Amino acid sequence: MAAAIALSRRGRGLSTPNPNVGCIIVRDGHIVGRGWTQKGGRPHAEAQALEQALDRAHGACCYVTLEPCFHLSPRGPRCADLLARAGVARVVIALRDPDPRTDGQGAAWLRERGIAVDMGLMAEDAARAMAGFVLGQTLGRPHVTLKLALSLDGQIALADGSSRWITGSQARAHAHMERARHDAILIGGGTLRADAPRLDVRIAGLEERSPRRILLSRGEAPDGWERISAPGDISTLDRVDHLLVEGGAATAAAFLRAGLVDRLMLYRAPILVGAGLAGVGDIGLTDLSEAHGRWRLIDERRLGVDGLEVYEAVRTA
Amino acid sequence: MAAAIALSRRGRGLSTPNPNVGCIIVRDGHIVGRGWTQKGGRPHAEAQALEQALDRAHGACCYVTLEPCFHLSPRGPRCADLLARAGVARVVIALRDPDPRTDGQGAAWLRERGIAVDMGLMAEDAARAMAGFVLGQTLGRPHVTLKLALSLDGQIALADGSSRWITGSQARAHAHMERARHDAILIGGGTLRADAPRLDVRIAGLEERSPRRILLSRGEAPDGWERISAPGDISTLDRVDHLLVEGGAATAAAFLRAGLVDRLMLYRAPILVGAGLAGVGDIGLTDLSEAHGRWRLIDERRLGVDGLEVYEAVRTA
Repeated sequence: MAAAIALSRRGRGLSTPNPNVGCIIVRDGHIVGRGWTQKGGRPHAEAQALEQALDRAHGACCYVTLEPCFHLSPRGPRCADLLARAGVARVVIALRDPDPRTDGQGAAWLRERGIAVDMGLMAEDAARAMAGFVLGQTLGRPHVTLKLALSLDGQIALADGSSRWITGSQARAHAHMERARHDAILIGGGTLRADAPRLDVRIAGLEERSPRRILLSRGEAPDGWERISAPGDISTLDRVDHLLVEGGAATAAAFLRAGLVDRLMLYRAPILVGAGLAGVGDIGLTDLSEAHGRWRLIDERRLGVDGLEVYEAVRTA
Repeated sequence: MAAAIALSRRGRGLSTPNPNVGCIIVRDGHIVGRGWTQKGGRPHAEAQALEQALDRAHGACCYVTLEPCFHLSPRGPRCADLLARAGVARVVIALRDPDPRTDGQGAAWLRERGIAVDMGLMAEDAARAMAGFVLGQTLGRPHVTLKLALSLDGQIALADGSSRWITGSQARAHAHMERARHDAILIGGGTLRADAPRLDVRIAGLEERSPRRILLSRGEAPDGWERISAPGDISTLDRVDHLLVEGGAATAAAFLRAGLVDRLMLYRAPILVGAGLAGVGDIGLTDLSEAHGRWRLIDERRLGVDGLEVYEAVRTA
């Protein structure tokens, strides 16, 4: 299942309007098919894996990160049906499909056809890999990552606004790779006016993965940009599962105040800036005790001399 | 030698006016004596280790983090002489003594007596463990550690000044332990007025290790405090090898501007504060490129949910 989850990540930022599912088909201890949801959402991961496996799928075990779809669509076949027709013996599912059109029916249908079905294996990891889809189904909005490139003392620029560069080349390349994993990038009007960033993916071979550009502003958006006027409007963005918020401080604070940041990516350079521009504006905090317990470290690594820390919002039910 | 360096750290914040040396005596593969410079500087590490070893020192190998002293003192014997009288066969030294009264003469005198002498093993680590003594000899000032307890976004308090607590209990206990390793702690007048901190070591059994308290201010110091009016005056502090600067932002910036911070200890809590009080004030930076290459990460660890990063100033010759 870990391999299927890894495959599912390949579809991030590409597979909308469909979830970025990963699928592995195993027969007699060998992988006979691998698939992930393709650009624009078709083919589905299962369909692609079955196409590789051909008749070796008969009697095989299928590992898939999301319950196979059961609802009819004019865009392609139902995966539950495809798997049954191919004669797989067992289907191991990480996450039950929260889409009400499937929501357990895919698994039930497979079981009715005599196929063994297990559900829940590595469900948390799978949900993280498909976070945009899951949030879309449950909260009706994209998954939001706030990215900040900070000095040790939390500054994103000198007082005059100059920010080239806080972090080094490895961290910047990593950040470009991260852009390619998102459907859209959002910045505020201040950053647009100050930096006029291109927000594209400057990695050879991945230029086409440059995400859509969105401006948080009450003013007009330039050509080629979309615009929203408040963080809450992200739910109106069509076909955006994963949104990357890149700043500046007022935009970061607006999303944090609205409780609309799911993940923090902090690139940290080993420099001190002193009295510059802070990375995060007023988030309305009045009591330090309220700041605690909100963020859980899920990844950290060194990128050259810089550090990267990734935090996930702790959701209390 | 690593064991001798570890022993030497026990004398940090205690051994002034003498360097915090560590010493191990090994005979036939067994440690027969261990010593470190005691409170107030006597006995020296070698004397203590020899006292444990007794006649087993004869023919033994002595590992010592600093060249054994050769100059006469009314306060105790010369260690080079002690080692020769004890009949050790070999002396392995990490760091040549920068004190001009010894400065190679201890090693030369041992060699003249037929004792094998090696110098330079793990010299860099030994110098780091005795950094206060080394800086005192070379620059005539204490070793300065700047400690900051920061949120992810570099804040040390809310805008109203409240800072209890940014970090959790494990990080605060670690910071108290660090106090015990320093001869003195310094804060600025603003922090004194706002927080009236006791700056003591609140760890059971270590209360007596509470360091001297120093105020950076042009005004008067309260009873029990010493005072300096500018960072450069740290060279006038008597018997301070290791100085811990605990803030606030103006004091941190004053030491950074003066180039008088040798080590940064950053305790980092997984919280966001937003528009609060930044940890570092104006350090006079006008060009981001000048901020790079100044700090090298030498240690990082987790302390409960908090992180600790330790950086060392990169000195360019």
